[in-house]
Amino acid sequence: MHDGSLLLEVHTLDSFTPTPADRFTFGLWTVGNPGRDPFGPSVRATQSPNRIVAKLAECGAYGVNLHDEDLIPFGSSAQERDRIVGEFKAALEDNGLKVPMATTNLFSQPIFKDGAFTSNDPRVRAFALQKTMRAIDLGVELGAGIYVFWGGREGTESDACRSPIEATKRFRGAIDFLCGYVRDQGYDLRFALEAKPNEPRGDIYLATTGHMLHFISTLDEPERVGVNPEVAHETMAGLSFVHSIAQAMEAEKLFHIDLNGQRIGRFDQDLRFGSEDLKQAFLTVRLLEGGVGNAPYEGPLHFDAHAYRTEDDDGVWEFAVGCMRTYKILKSRAVAFDADPDVQEIIQARRDAALDPLLDGGYSSEAAAAISAATIDVTAVAQEGLGYERLDQLLVEHLMGVRG
Amino acid sequence: MHDGSLLLEVHTLDSFTPTPADRFTFGLWTVGNPGRDPFGPSVRATQSPNRIVAKLAECGAYGVNLHDEDLIPFGSSAQERDRIVGEFKAALEDNGLKVPMATTNLFSQPIFKDGAFTSNDPRVRAFALQKTMRAIDLGVELGAGIYVFWGGREGTESDACRSPIEATKRFRGAIDFLCGYVRDQGYDLRFALEAKPNEPRGDIYLATTGHMLHFISTLDEPERVGVNPEVAHETMAGLSFVHSIAQAMEAEKLFHIDLNGQRIGRFDQDLRFGSEDLKQAFLTVRLLEGGVGNAPYEGPLHFDAHAYRTEDDDGVWEFAVGCMRTYKILKSRAVAFDADPDVQEIIQARRDAALDPLLDGGYSSEAAAAISAATIDVTAVAQEGLGYERLDQLLVEHLMGVRG
Amino acid sequence: MHDGSLLLEVHTLDSFTPTPADRFTFGLWTVGNPGRDPFGPSVRATQSPNRIVAKLAECGAYGVNLHDEDLIPFGSSAQERDRIVGEFKAALEDNGLKVPMATTNLFSQPIFKDGAFTSNDPRVRAFALQKTMRAIDLGVELGAGIYVFWGGREGTESDACRSPIEATKRFRGAIDFLCGYVRDQGYDLRFALEAKPNEPRGDIYLATTGHMLHFISTLDEPERVGVNPEVAHETMAGLSFVHSIAQAMEAEKLFHIDLNGQRIGRFDQDLRFGSEDLKQAFLTVRLLEGGVGNAPYEGPLHFDAHAYRTEDDDGVWEFAVGCMRTYKILKSRAVAFDADPDVQEIIQARRDAALDPLLDGGYSSEAAAAISAATIDVTAVAQEGLGYERLDQLLVEHLMGVRG
Amino acid sequence: MHDGSLLLEVHTLDSFTPTPADRFTFGLWTVGNPGRDPFGPSVRATQSPNRIVAKLAECGAYGVNLHDEDLIPFGSSAQERDRIVGEFKAALEDNGLKVPMATTNLFSQPIFKDGAFTSNDPRVRAFALQKTMRAIDLGVELGAGIYVFWGGREGTESDACRSPIEATKRFRGAIDFLCGYVRDQGYDLRFALEAKPNEPRGDIYLATTGHMLHFISTLDEPERVGVNPEVAHETMAGLSFVHSIAQAMEAEKLFHIDLNGQRIGRFDQDLRFGSEDLKQAFLTVRLLEGGVGNAPYEGPLHFDAHAYRTEDDDGVWEFAVGCMRTYKILKSRAVAFDADPDVQEIIQARRDAALDPLLDGGYSSEAAAAISAATIDVTAVAQEGLGYERLDQLLVEHLMGVRG
Repeated sequence: MHDGSLLLEVHTLDSFTPTPADRFTFGLWTVGNPGRDPFGPSVRATQSPNRIVAKLAECGAYGVNLHDEDLIPFGSSAQERDRIVGEFKAALEDNGLKVPMATTNLFSQPIFKDGAFTSNDPRVRAFALQKTMRAIDLGVELGAGIYVFWGGREGTESDACRSPIEATKRFRGAIDFLCGYVRDQGYDLRFALEAKPNEPRGDIYLATTGHMLHFISTLDEPERVGVNPEVAHETMAGLSFVHSIAQAMEAEKLFHIDLNGQRIGRFDQDLRFGSEDLKQAFLTVRLLEGGVGNAPYEGPLHFDAHAYRTEDDDGVWEFAVGCMRTYKILKSRAVAFDADPDVQEIIQARRDAALDPLLDGGYSSEAAAAISAATIDVTAVAQEGLGYERLDQLLVEHLMGVRG
Repeated sequence: MHDGSLLLEVHTLDSFTPTPADRFTFGLWTVGNPGRDPFGPSVRATQSPNRIVAKLAECGAYGVNLHDEDLIPFGSSAQERDRIVGEFKAALEDNGLKVPMATTNLFSQPIFKDGAFTSNDPRVRAFALQKTMRAIDLGVELGAGIYVFWGGREGTESDACRSPIEATKRFRGAIDFLCGYVRDQGYDLRFALEAKPNEPRGDIYLATTGHMLHFISTLDEPERVGVNPEVAHETMAGLSFVHSIAQAMEAEKLFHIDLNGQRIGRFDQDLRFGSEDLKQAFLTVRLLEGGVGNAPYEGPLHFDAHAYRTEDDDGVWEFAVGCMRTYKILKSRAVAFDADPDVQEIIQARRDAALDPLLDGGYSSEAAAAISAATIDVTAVAQEGLGYERLDQLLVEHLMGVRG
Repeated sequence: MHDGSLLLEVHTLDSFTPTPADRFTFGLWTVGNPGRDPFGPSVRATQSPNRIVAKLAECGAYGVNLHDEDLIPFGSSAQERDRIVGEFKAALEDNGLKVPMATTNLFSQPIFKDGAFTSNDPRVRAFALQKTMRAIDLGVELGAGIYVFWGGREGTESDACRSPIEATKRFRGAIDFLCGYVRDQGYDLRFALEAKPNEPRGDIYLATTGHMLHFISTLDEPERVGVNPEVAHETMAGLSFVHSIAQAMEAEKLFHIDLNGQRIGRFDQDLRFGSEDLKQAFLTVRLLEGGVGNAPYEGPLHFDAHAYRTEDDDGVWEFAVGCMRTYKILKSRAVAFDADPDVQEIIQARRDAALDPLLDGGYSSEAAAAISAATIDVTAVAQEGLGYERLDQLLVEHLMGVRG
Repeated sequence: MHDGSLLLEVHTLDSFTPTPADRFTFGLWTVGNPGRDPFGPSVRATQSPNRIVAKLAECGAYGVNLHDEDLIPFGSSAQERDRIVGEFKAALEDNGLKVPMATTNLFSQPIFKDGAFTSNDPRVRAFALQKTMRAIDLGVELGAGIYVFWGGREGTESDACRSPIEATKRFRGAIDFLCGYVRDQGYDLRFALEAKPNEPRGDIYLATTGHMLHFISTLDEPERVGVNPEVAHETMAGLSFVHSIAQAMEAEKLFHIDLNGQRIGRFDQDLRFGSEDLKQAFLTVRLLEGGVGNAPYEGPLHFDAHAYRTEDDDGVWEFAVGCMRTYKILKSRAVAFDADPDVQEIIQARRDAALDPLLDGGYSSEAAAAISAATIDVTAVAQEGLGYERLDQLLVEHLMGVRG
């Protein structure tokens, strides 16, 4: 349709052009997605991992992530595996790309049709551990510091098939076991657990980032394990992605992040970052960058998304560049928003010299007595307008580039 | 429309008639709901708390729960408060009803329009603590052992108004403070936190039972605090209610439960228990009653629901009896389902003499080596059919009373 | 997992065993679904169409439906096509099965990646007409009286790609053209249009049965064209399936129906009929069978669903039998419900000797004057309770087999 | 929180300041909304209609719309009614405001608790007609040319209470009757029907704009009746608002529009226009303004929304100004988008000299033969990339003000 010049090139000199310093990463399975869906086969040729590495570097990415099977076809011999890994490492080096994260595919092979770690069948559970230990070895060999777990098949359609309590115990057993493996091997590797409410299963266990965070608190080695929230997965359930990552950040558990786009209440769309719900994307970037006065997220910014099925190879790279450009535009909009005195006037913390020490000091009988005795003019406080319509309009106008 | 005989009376001799031994409870605000909604005013007269107590006892309930304002009008004098409480206690005694749970209304008064514990205004936060301490005193005076927190206004429409990280800290501070108060007073009281994703706020913090469970794990006194999951609140987000309560039960955190009916992706409907999604209701009852071999839930079975706005007073009590009857019918169906040998054949745990000890024994280098070395016939395992369509059809036929 | 005896056999003598007189049909693509999904490949072997015919007959089905490509592989020669059709017709005859409905696959081939009838590319639109004319010929040859159109790719992710007004015109042009083709060929064939809100496209044009019904009213030959509502497709959007089919029935436009199960706000699940939302399934069967005093639907009862990916071949046929058994159980429950005098007491029409003639007689100045002058006791009418909680509880108890 | 200067004033000289020429309207119930919701009472004082008129004029609005009860309290005497109307007309004239649209409140009064036109009770149906005829008289007296029908209570929770087929007939009878009334009175008035899927009822009849459009095609006088689609109502069901209004526009049935903001799968939020889903808002404005080459919508642009419950009176007018400013900003962004040659290169219609005449000429045997005989290179066509990722990124960058 057009002359082949990527937006990347068109905008080559603008301030939104991605660079490795931005820490943007993609999965082999994302830009490599050939466009297969439940109603039709692939529309794009399969790309070799090494070509993907070269193209990502050209687009300004920092790194590439992978499932074991994205690189090593299921059932490969050890010799074949080593040859592939060797060539892939050479491609990484040639192109200056890192592998910050790796993961196991525990959902495609038919043996996992009823789950991996939570399957009723001990043979399946054992095979899932086998496969994961090997995949961890691979990830470490490629330099990954983060290992993601997405239990895509850990769920049910007919919930009577398994005790959900037993499922939790099995999942915990597996993660505890694999933490043991990593310790035992002396790997410098942290785990990041990724929640999803449904699809491909009717209901997937540990459905949200909240459920995952609690699950982590029950592990043998909770400090090794954090979360990998995905925009699309929280959004499918209509939840605030910003609230979920804020809870994870406050608990120092945001180990990785999957950025993409999604509409509420739909199949898993994995759209280009920022292509849906720009306001939530703005708030996400603002939080990740420390815009609310918080410690910024400093890990890789991973786009777990893919190009529309209408696209050819050019479209795939437009998609990739678009994800990164939009992040950078939103970052610039967020900075301008927080620098706007009209914004700060509304959101600055209120202070009360008498009450603040009582509220911030924890419980004591004295504090309780003092709070109980405080006189609050309920009617007067209630009547104060909070200016949030103005605030939100300021946000929208900053987002649209009218202010700033 | 009919002769005034309740289903209760019609079925007076059947095995599904509720009795206090069933531990069913209702809130004053549930059967007392006058039918006001966003598009119209009340359609039913306000009932006095004492009349509600008498009617609930007549219907076979075990107890009644309340918000502070359900019993004591906002702004009542201490003298008025004591008179009301005295009369209410007499009504409870006369009718043999308990108050197992109490809670604070932190959402109706305009002062809470932007939250209570998470408000930006120290005066609002102080007032919320004041009001809750008084309401805890009231709950304890009435004999409650469980104190529920539902932060109905703890959220945002325009998320820029407040750091979501700061909101978490404020909410934690408040719960820690109130745990301190309960300890200091020597009350025998446990807290149960109730999540909701949205409504009345655009997004409410700690949106699901999963988020709440994690939040609890970060408290000063986590052992005092559990969850109060509500069918409608998890269902609004399309989440599996059964999975959420299973996670809470496994963690010994299911301190209370709110049973009702709801369709996914809608306003908070608070429908009669079992009137929507009978299969999920069946699975819920089965889990609560220990049907998957788990320790049963032994707390009160609270119906947080209300009659349709089309109903008069008779309809309110039909609604109440309906909630309880449906629970008992589902319990009987669940028992029959689990006693069915065709069911057990499908769901019984698979055993593997070699793998089970490896999988159940935790991590060791030896176990890892043995699992890595195990030969799994991936193709053969994958080809086994699991019989879940048969299982689910058996469930549906039990539910409809065709089997058993 | 079990001894291979289908529920069919277990229940062989009960009144819910399906028979051809029940008019149940399945698509080749439904019981033939091999279990492929977005996250994994097939888990079951591909079955030949002729085997499916034999198995469906064995299970008690009346007929089998098909897309062109379900029977004739894309790109087959004319000779190959004729051979396949000949063998298939023999299988139908041998097994006493009909083909009441046929349809075109306009969504799998990559050429349709951006739609068929609404594509921006004239070559795609021409090819879609070519393919459909041939597929109509095939359907008619096999005896189909109904031809379904599901425009699975007629939609967008990035809505700027095409004027949605132009899309409507193109879709209308195609249906008008194909009506012309059917007329010209002298075929005795009616069209049934099937709506879906999304998946595989972000948004599909003519998203609900309501949109389709309106679209039909704008066609050249509206009398030839009706709708094929699908439970899952209306339910994905959270709409009442019963209301949509009632509107179609009232307009005499319910030409075909796709029965299955689905949860709101999810990917297209195509679950076994009755496995989700039993109450809506009950109300659907009641309406189709004329339970509200309406003319019953007399067309084929098609199950557009497939077995879970956990199932082997046995599970597929359990699934098929389960769909049919549940329909028959629900039909028997609906009959008992409407025969219950307690139900009829609540739902019987109210009568008012003075007002009814005014309300039923259409507009006249006299009627307007009389209605304006009528004295309605607004307060008294408003206070009457309508008994709907009792009614709904009766429904639930009938559904669970407690009454009747 | 701030110095009281409205955004209106701050931006008083910019090109996005609203003026009457923009045709923006608000309902008395929108800017007059006092902040009552299901969980709490009003937070703002009730404003008089006449004050609202003055404030709207000050903000740059063109007109104000109303329900009968917004202006005339239910149960007012004829004398009181005439006094109020007289004063309101004076206020309109003083402030140069129009009343382009009026409607009837058929949902608040308890008598309508089970519907108005579809109620089972003839007295309720008669009263609904009475009330509507009087309200139509009022609307016409105030100069309204459009009369909206939103059947907020026309639905069910327990669907067994009424035949949905009978409900359709009753609703049609009422609209036909009222068309007769308007004709008979010689009023120059068109009707606009507004759909909503649920809330306050569990399911509302004629759930979407599509269902309404079809219903209109079955009326006695379809040319008098069009639709009034509302962003929030289509969005609650996750449907594309743009597709629904495009279908209405193509059928020349977009008589009125309700602009606001909403998240999918939630309670009816009625948020400030553009505050959610900016991309859909952009596409909506673009379509209304004729951006896809279509005839633009020329009716009033009505904002059916209200300020957050956190706001005082200042916040209400910030809200109102925000709705209008965002519309104008989006309009300017849409114009720039369609003027961008990179956009036009992607979306321009493809042409095929041989196929276009065949596709555009309607059915004939000759056209069918020619299309059947056309040679389409299926593989080559399928491989063409469509550039939609680039297109959508261009849209997002225009929206954010980076281009243009």
